[in-house]
Amino acid sequence: MPLPFRVSATCPGSRARRGSFLTSHGRVETPVFMDVGTRATVTDCAPADLKSVGAQVLLGNTYHLMLRPGVEAFRRLGGIHKFMGWSGPVLTDSGGYQIFSLPGSRTVTEKGARFKGYTDQQMHMLSPERAIEVQTAIGSDIMMVLDECIDSMSDEPTTRAAMNRTHRWALRSLNARTNPAQALFAIVQGGVVPQLRRESAAFLTPHPFDGFAIGGLAVGDSRAQREDVTALAAELLPPDKPRYLMGVGTPPDLLNAMLAGVDMFDCIIPTQLAAQGTAFTSTGRVRLTRTQNFLADEPLDATCACATCTTFSRAYLHHLFKAREPLGPRLVSMHNLHAYHVLMAESRSAIENGTFASYAKERLDAIDRHEHSSTRFGEVR
Amino acid sequence: MPLPFRVSATCPGSRARRGSFLTSHGRVETPVFMDVGTRATVTDCAPADLKSVGAQVLLGNTYHLMLRPGVEAFRRLGGIHKFMGWSGPVLTDSGGYQIFSLPGSRTVTEKGARFKGYTDQQMHMLSPERAIEVQTAIGSDIMMVLDECIDSMSDEPTTRAAMNRTHRWALRSLNARTNPAQALFAIVQGGVVPQLRRESAAFLTPHPFDGFAIGGLAVGDSRAQREDVTALAAELLPPDKPRYLMGVGTPPDLLNAMLAGVDMFDCIIPTQLAAQGTAFTSTGRVRLTRTQNFLADEPLDATCACATCTTFSRAYLHHLFKAREPLGPRLVSMHNLHAYHVLMAESRSAIENGTFASYAKERLDAIDRHEHSSTRFGEVR
Repeated sequence: MPLPFRVSATCPGSRARRGSFLTSHGRVETPVFMDVGTRATVTDCAPADLKSVGAQVLLGNTYHLMLRPGVEAFRRLGGIHKFMGWSGPVLTDSGGYQIFSLPGSRTVTEKGARFKGYTDQQMHMLSPERAIEVQTAIGSDIMMVLDECIDSMSDEPTTRAAMNRTHRWALRSLNARTNPAQALFAIVQGGVVPQLRRESAAFLTPHPFDGFAIGGLAVGDSRAQREDVTALAAELLPPDKPRYLMGVGTPPDLLNAMLAGVDMFDCIIPTQLAAQGTAFTSTGRVRLTRTQNFLADEPLDATCACATCTTFSRAYLHHLFKAREPLGPRLVSMHNLHAYHVLMAESRSAIENGTFASYAKERLDAIDRHEHSSTRFGEVR
Repeated sequence: MPLPFRVSATCPGSRARRGSFLTSHGRVETPVFMDVGTRATVTDCAPADLKSVGAQVLLGNTYHLMLRPGVEAFRRLGGIHKFMGWSGPVLTDSGGYQIFSLPGSRTVTEKGARFKGYTDQQMHMLSPERAIEVQTAIGSDIMMVLDECIDSMSDEPTTRAAMNRTHRWALRSLNARTNPAQALFAIVQGGVVPQLRRESAAFLTPHPFDGFAIGGLAVGDSRAQREDVTALAAELLPPDKPRYLMGVGTPPDLLNAMLAGVDMFDCIIPTQLAAQGTAFTSTGRVRLTRTQNFLADEPLDATCACATCTTFSRAYLHHLFKAREPLGPRLVSMHNLHAYHVLMAESRSAIENGTFASYAKERLDAIDRHEHSSTRFGEVR
């Protein structure tokens, strides 16, 4: 077992749980939000910055990293931790979602996905075995199986076929693993069809995976569907393994999924919105480019202890975005990631104290209030 | 006298001098390299980053800052130090060079420069009096007079006319000053004509400016001309006031100008070259985008103590530039600025120890050697 997982507290009134697992690069306290560093960098944030905002685990992406710098570079340079100067745990997504979502020619067969690389214009094959081989070279602490991603609004036969292929690929991935120190997670699929999610969990959970992810939920579905499927899927997963909701979401998504018993998250929203000048604050979303911030001599969030909020005014951040200066996205990214990590730390404490159900309700209510006022906090648009 | 300047050591075999001056925002040790933060930000470097690489003084630009965020913002928000979160000294250039060098319609008359603003498409007037008014609102510790900049290859009558206008504008600037706590520097002009440089220094130095700059040397001239004019102009300036060589230059430029007795410098080269992936190292310039860095598992500069060199490999920096990730320019900017500040700190020590002439010769010889090997360190291309 490369990833001993221990649940240290559960919480009355919800399925939320407080836990931790140990990787070769340190312990991870759950529930955890993982910072997305697709190309072995979280946009414009150095590893020291990420530590300072509370990051525990970074996410790399097999699809992007096999194209650049490539497997050979990781083999010669000694893995992603040394490469990017991050000594903490790393999880690598398998690339299944990128194969599905990125433009460009590709053919998906039982063997795997054949696609043209955007860095070299050459054809590449990403099979379940190749995804494990690449992740082994990358040296991530947690590897993901290659899955077949489809639009979550696909019809049931299409969804079932992709799910079944994902199952076969998951077993091939398990067989292909060579380094027992790297954990391997399977991905439950089945779109928004409850019966398929049940079948997927039933198929995958008897196998010796180190954790289970809930996949296919970032594409085209509504918040209500995300919540229903997440709650169902989490319930179907074994209690003694970490549960990872992939690519979701907003703070309400996180709160609802924690209530349902999810332990791990990742999402590009905090850094993606930061790049556009949108910040998550205790009084709702703030769009820094708006004229009302031009002379706003106040912190982005008066209740926030991050370096951005304790050093700079909204007026200065507004100025940086207006002048298209890269310091703007960087400072707001740091704030948004800090806000996410504070949400997770508060949630962990609340679960320990048995107060998470009321904490989550309070936060969700506050977000709802802000959504109905001039700024909005909860939904991705 | 808002800027008491004290020379604490001179150095045998050169005109180099070690000094310091006091501003409302702290003491500055000279010779000093000032980091260029045109729009109230040094590209992608937060104030804490700048402190960590040894920055003493930041440079703002009147032309850019009067357009965005504008005078009213500085008046309402309390000046540039608070605005950008930098508690150390700030020098503001007057905008004369931007009026000359940036594209767009403008008319320069005796009154000042009329130009169309790139932020609002409105007509603006930048006169000597307005430049002081704007710099007063910005609240910089050192203001520069508005000067008329021309191509340094202009004929003598043109150069003389611009010089004479610069002199008249300098006296109007002196009269327009309202805040005695802000120092004001005049700018010696005269292109590459020694006699004009003599006339300019002779005209300006009797007036109660707090320091004197050597202007007009970043445009179209050769390194030899820069050196000759700098040496001459520095010699003509009073020994009891700081001498500031504007917008120049490379490490050899700095070393030669310090030998000639210059105390203050600024230049965009360290950050501009960083944006392209070029780093200044002890073994010459390194272009990180080159294929030879793809698998280079070594620091950018093994002799450098900056966070970039002690944390990351050339291979990782190469990857960041290939992937167009903003962390690349940021990390190399930090390294280049650190290298510049180390050069200045070593120079200050060498002047104190009376060894600067040999230190400078050693550095210049080393740079020459690298220029004649595969990488080049000294010249801007």
